[in-house]
Amino acid sequence: MKRDITPQNKNFAKWYQDVVREADLAEASEVRGCGIVKPYGYKIWELIKEEIAKKIEQTGAQNVYFPLFIPIENLEAEKEHVQGFSPELAVVTHAGGEDLENKLVVRPTSETSMYKTYAKWIQSYRDLPLRLNQWNNVVRWEKRPRPFLRWSEFLWQEGHSAFTNKEDAVKEVWQMLDIYEQVYMFLAIPVFKGKKSEMEKFAGGDMTTVVEIMVKDGKAIQGATSHYLGTNFAKVFNVKYLGEDEKEHYAHQTSWGFAWRAIGALIMVHGDDNGLKLPPNVAPIQVEIIPIYKNNNKTSVLEYANKIKEELKDFRVHIDSREELSPGYKFNECEVKGIPIRFEIGEKEVTENSITIFRRDTGEKVKVAKDNLKNTISEMFANIHENLFSEAKDFAQKHITRIESIDEIKNQVGFFEASWCESIESEKLLKERFSMVSRVLTKESESKEPKNKKCFITGKNAKHDWLFAKSY
Amino acid sequence: MKRDITPQNKNFAKWYQDVVREADLAEASEVRGCGIVKPYGYKIWELIKEEIAKKIEQTGAQNVYFPLFIPIENLEAEKEHVQGFSPELAVVTHAGGEDLENKLVVRPTSETSMYKTYAKWIQSYRDLPLRLNQWNNVVRWEKRPRPFLRWSEFLWQEGHSAFTNKEDAVKEVWQMLDIYEQVYMFLAIPVFKGKKSEMEKFAGGDMTTVVEIMVKDGKAIQGATSHYLGTNFAKVFNVKYLGEDEKEHYAHQTSWGFAWRAIGALIMVHGDDNGLKLPPNVAPIQVEIIPIYKNNNKTSVLEYANKIKEELKDFRVHIDSREELSPGYKFNECEVKGIPIRFEIGEKEVTENSITIFRRDTGEKVKVAKDNLKNTISEMFANIHENLFSEAKDFAQKHITRIESIDEIKNQVGFFEASWCESIESEKLLKERFSMVSRVLTKESESKEPKNKKCFITGKNAKHDWLFAKSY
Repeated sequence: MKRDITPQNKNFAKWYQDVVREADLAEASEVRGCGIVKPYGYKIWELIKEEIAKKIEQTGAQNVYFPLFIPIENLEAEKEHVQGFSPELAVVTHAGGEDLENKLVVRPTSETSMYKTYAKWIQSYRDLPLRLNQWNNVVRWEKRPRPFLRWSEFLWQEGHSAFTNKEDAVKEVWQMLDIYEQVYMFLAIPVFKGKKSEMEKFAGGDMTTVVEIMVKDGKAIQGATSHYLGTNFAKVFNVKYLGEDEKEHYAHQTSWGFAWRAIGALIMVHGDDNGLKLPPNVAPIQVEIIPIYKNNNKTSVLEYANKIKEELKDFRVHIDSREELSPGYKFNECEVKGIPIRFEIGEKEVTENSITIFRRDTGEKVKVAKDNLKNTISEMFANIHENLFSEAKDFAQKHITRIESIDEIKNQVGFFEASWCESIESEKLLKERFSMVSRVLTKESESKEPKNKKCFITGKNAKHDWLFAKSY
Repeated sequence: MKRDITPQNKNFAKWYQDVVREADLAEASEVRGCGIVKPYGYKIWELIKEEIAKKIEQTGAQNVYFPLFIPIENLEAEKEHVQGFSPELAVVTHAGGEDLENKLVVRPTSETSMYKTYAKWIQSYRDLPLRLNQWNNVVRWEKRPRPFLRWSEFLWQEGHSAFTNKEDAVKEVWQMLDIYEQVYMFLAIPVFKGKKSEMEKFAGGDMTTVVEIMVKDGKAIQGATSHYLGTNFAKVFNVKYLGEDEKEHYAHQTSWGFAWRAIGALIMVHGDDNGLKLPPNVAPIQVEIIPIYKNNNKTSVLEYANKIKEELKDFRVHIDSREELSPGYKFNECEVKGIPIRFEIGEKEVTENSITIFRRDTGEKVKVAKDNLKNTISEMFANIHENLFSEAKDFAQKHITRIESIDEIKNQVGFFEASWCESIESEKLLKERFSMVSRVLTKESESKEPKNKKCFITGKNAKHDWLFAKSY
């Protein structure tokens, strides 16, 4: 049985929806724009989360929990911030049987909830840096929802730090971005790392840094962001400290977040027409053992399968022993679900003390000896990871089109690289004409002169070479 | 410096608030009824959560995520359920810049969100049992909030299972309750385990089981609940399956939840006038090392402290090396925060190769040799845990007053045991007169005849001996 998956080159958006459904990751809920994440999808998120949590903890940041609700006047206090978020807010007007005097917003992000409290907690330079992180749900109402990438409610972590000075704050911004890059490497996904433009930066912040990802239809996914907020919020919420100089100063703040939209990137970067392809690091099942037997050898085959599972107990191994389904059906399901390695175990394998292995990433089938299995699989996992990463990297590198003028933008698949004047007006024009904006100024490009001295849109002085693309 | 903590016997409720503040666990937020959980408090929750998550996973239940919002008409579908929850609901009436045609409720619990989806997922007996769990936030508007115990928003896990038959469902109800009891044992807290009365059971369910906890002022805390929902929700949401008999049947459902209110129980069961007392299992810092030095021996003392920390790297050990604070201040802070063991390390200890240990639970100070330290501490942790548990158990056993008539209820501290007719009317009367309801019919009492044949309230036929108490 082949699953009902639209080919990628026929309709990529439809392919994505099909894979989310057929791999049993998630489905739409009856609340418009909100999704239900099913066990297989949620386990992937848990594995990603574990990795991020570990890395954040290593930096010394501590976890906290702030309320879901924010008084609407807090949001309104930072002008740019509320402008950025107000079209997406969900508002609670009634609670505990009464109309609320002061309306509450369901947090779209927690700057305006946390920083009023930071102002109380921070008195002296000794209280800094303050580096806190939350794992929570946030709500940003979506008119055009898309599983994982654009749901009205999503899960993420949001970190919020305060420092005595700009230098330390900016260092933190890049440190957290580096962590996000590492997490994407853990997912075998290469990123473009750098700064956002004035128009695309976080509402209320001074600088936004980002990891951008190119997916298989050439569009971009914003993988995660890390913001330098300057003293903007500090001024609004009065986050001040008494310095060693015995004078009052505003704190320099940062915020940084990583959401489950990473699962969307994971699907779109590695998946193919047969479904998902998961790197072993985040595969809920790393090895699926499919026993193939008849009545006369059922016991010996299952015994052999169990022995193998036991030997591989350090990995996430599952035996698919469902009686009512054929091996063919199970093979197909493994592929759709992106399980990195499938074992086929039958009479022959038992006799030979061997295993037939199918690799989801290459589609290769090999027979290996059962001896030294743990090492064999360990190496294969490393190899699969590397293969997925380099395929994605090759793809991304091959799909960057250098252009010198906006008129060269046609239907090319991928990102555009161009020398740009960085003005808001020119970016608005680009957005209007091509539904496209700047994605990132990579660190590499930032340190160089632009290849063309003239901006590809305005003809004015170009500042740097930027990447542009349509995005999810 | 002694902290600003009201003595327990002066004002227990005030003592609780003081400990929450002085131990740096949490504070009120600007959103009425919602709290901010600070790093030290949140870490305790993470340690509890880890233990529950492990145990739930071992039963084979899988984690999922359902939306925060529930269409209000779903809640209204189950009559008793909506009556139970409607006074506590928070309602979103406006989102994405528009008034919502269909109002959304912020989930107070997810039965009415999940079971409509269960109806789609469950077709045949082969789809059962379905056993899913969520870690999330829920909102139940509180008129009289109290940290951890009664906040309008709280974190918890809610598990939801469906079975083909009552027997399996009821077995699950008790299995999950057993897990909750084990988690409380992990917190060194003894529980009273059994059934809730008709009036006190979950709105919409058939039977509620509970673990009840007696805290130091003699009141009860409901520790966690596990419900048998019968086919009530199944009938409302059409959760049906085709049986092996090829006929349609309604599924039998259960739900079970454990919330961060456990932290409230933890504080109130073990704490004393000096603050928190944490069992080592959930102490964010299990051992605090306080180096005591002057300029001339600073290096050697700190070196020694670091060596000890390294030797105890399997535990959560912290060195308090803040220069600006005195050892006395640090000692006191350790006590307030309930850190199970404090090491005092000075010149003498370095010379002797010894450690001076202060135990928070007993207040004892002992000197031990540094050799074999890991074992010494391991054993001490076991001992502390046992001591905390048996103290709490002794207290609970000593504070149950047997009464034969409602008129014997005076200001006794603790629970009352009485033979009861189990009628709703009599419980209402008890509640009106004494602000007290039944807490639990323990498994033990359920299997026995009541000690008195006459109900202590109505004089009618008593069914069983129940426990009654005021509660948080």
